[in-house]
Amino acid sequence: MHCTQHVTTLRYAGDSITRQEDVVVTEYSLSVIVNDQEFATLLCSPVDLDTLTVGFLASEGVISGKKDIHDLRIDEQQGTACIELTSEQALHDVADRRVIASGGGRGGVRVETAALHAVIREQPFFRLSGQYLLSLSQEFLRHSSLHQATGGVHSAALCNADGIRMFAEDIGRHNTLDKIFGRCLLTDYPLAGHFIFSSGRVSSEMLLKVARQHIPLMVSKSAPTHLGVQLADELGITLIGFARGTQMNVYTHDWRIQEGSAMALTRHTPG
Amino acid sequence: MHCTQHVTTLRYAGDSITRQEDVVVTEYSLSVIVNDQEFATLLCSPVDLDTLTVGFLASEGVISGKKDIHDLRIDEQQGTACIELTSEQALHDVADRRVIASGGGRGGVRVETAALHAVIREQPFFRLSGQYLLSLSQEFLRHSSLHQATGGVHSAALCNADGIRMFAEDIGRHNTLDKIFGRCLLTDYPLAGHFIFSSGRVSSEMLLKVARQHIPLMVSKSAPTHLGVQLADELGITLIGFARGTQMNVYTHDWRIQEGSAMALTRHTPG
Repeated sequence: MHCTQHVTTLRYAGDSITRQEDVVVTEYSLSVIVNDQEFATLLCSPVDLDTLTVGFLASEGVISGKKDIHDLRIDEQQGTACIELTSEQALHDVADRRVIASGGGRGGVRVETAALHAVIREQPFFRLSGQYLLSLSQEFLRHSSLHQATGGVHSAALCNADGIRMFAEDIGRHNTLDKIFGRCLLTDYPLAGHFIFSSGRVSSEMLLKVARQHIPLMVSKSAPTHLGVQLADELGITLIGFARGTQMNVYTHDWRIQEGSAMALTRHTPG
Repeated sequence: MHCTQHVTTLRYAGDSITRQEDVVVTEYSLSVIVNDQEFATLLCSPVDLDTLTVGFLASEGVISGKKDIHDLRIDEQQGTACIELTSEQALHDVADRRVIASGGGRGGVRVETAALHAVIREQPFFRLSGQYLLSLSQEFLRHSSLHQATGGVHSAALCNADGIRMFAEDIGRHNTLDKIFGRCLLTDYPLAGHFIFSSGRVSSEMLLKVARQHIPLMVSKSAPTHLGVQLADELGITLIGFARGTQMNVYTHDWRIQEGSAMALTRHTPG
């Protein structure tokens, strides 16, 4: 199935009315079935369904690595992703955690952020030059504006000192991150020294997806919410918004951004 | 709580780096508790939480009118909306339906669309002039761009032949519709002869929310997905996208749009 589809529209532009061909983005429904039980339905773009499934289940805490997956079958026609786990344990743990989160309101998130903060603090520190980020931002915009022109989709990129290493697109901004992290998990790609570019708004959920991968820097073309900023601040993550080619706003932990020329990526403990 | 909050950012613009005040949109977490059971957590803007709760529960099929609500208490500090229903029945029905949808894949939606199509076909038909819609589109853009400038939020408006009758804003595009329909439900506002403007992308979920209120016309500033177009076509709903002041694309059932001057709203069966 294609990521876009052709439709006919009646186009009003000023006083003129014309019938014309138009392209709309495909919205695909994927049922994620874990150990024969329906776990969730994802509305997504019909590409990279395997990495989406794996990334989504990792983000939900159902799997933590390839070792947890016994079998993965995508049926694009049926709209199903069937996963068999090597153990039932993880699924039980998720069910338990959901009950706790249910009873304790936002207590579950508090416990998680404290644990994440501890891990992110222990990551190797690195700094990036502002100019390098701005040049990468231009490259990301070129990449994503091509896709936006044809499909109006969101995009995300995994980057390091050598530029964009992975790129994913989807109608859902959350899905773009799941696709990237799912691919990393399936290919054992090491995430140290990497950071994320996203086209989408940085809400608490988006920030948490990045934090769960222990990535200390996130750049978005769009605005963050106040909870996104608050969580980034608490977790020690550098959050950048409105990155649009020549401009950007650094909301938190700006010590990771240094002056200097492009491509200067250094690793050292914060001053 | 305010819908926006002030933060300090490091602003990169070309070669200049300045520390400045910035405004970010508030992301508020609301736990919806139905008959002492946690039903869902909504991430939203902290305004109109009562209409959001009622509209959301109506959209989920838990309530169908004011008569189903015994008590509704919002605790803004705690982030909870506690609803007591007059009967347990609806909640059981929702649980049952969820199981069926789970087992039958997308069968549940198929049954629902067939029922909705029958109801929407029986609604009084009306036609609108394209010019009236374009002038209303300009008014909606003025309304929403004000809010977008301060908070980057989505907005929705309930309109009829006399213009915009209700307006709602939220960080979530789905929430803007729930707030409008929740207010209609709480005030017994009659929806006949009304249609919806939205700033957000029209996915299948957005289209279904409007269809469930038996509203035959939806206009969006943004793009539709192919499933949004497909459902609108099947349900007999006129779907308009990219409505931006002087332009718009009519995707489905364009017989409801007629030529002529502004404010011409007529009701008759389709030709």
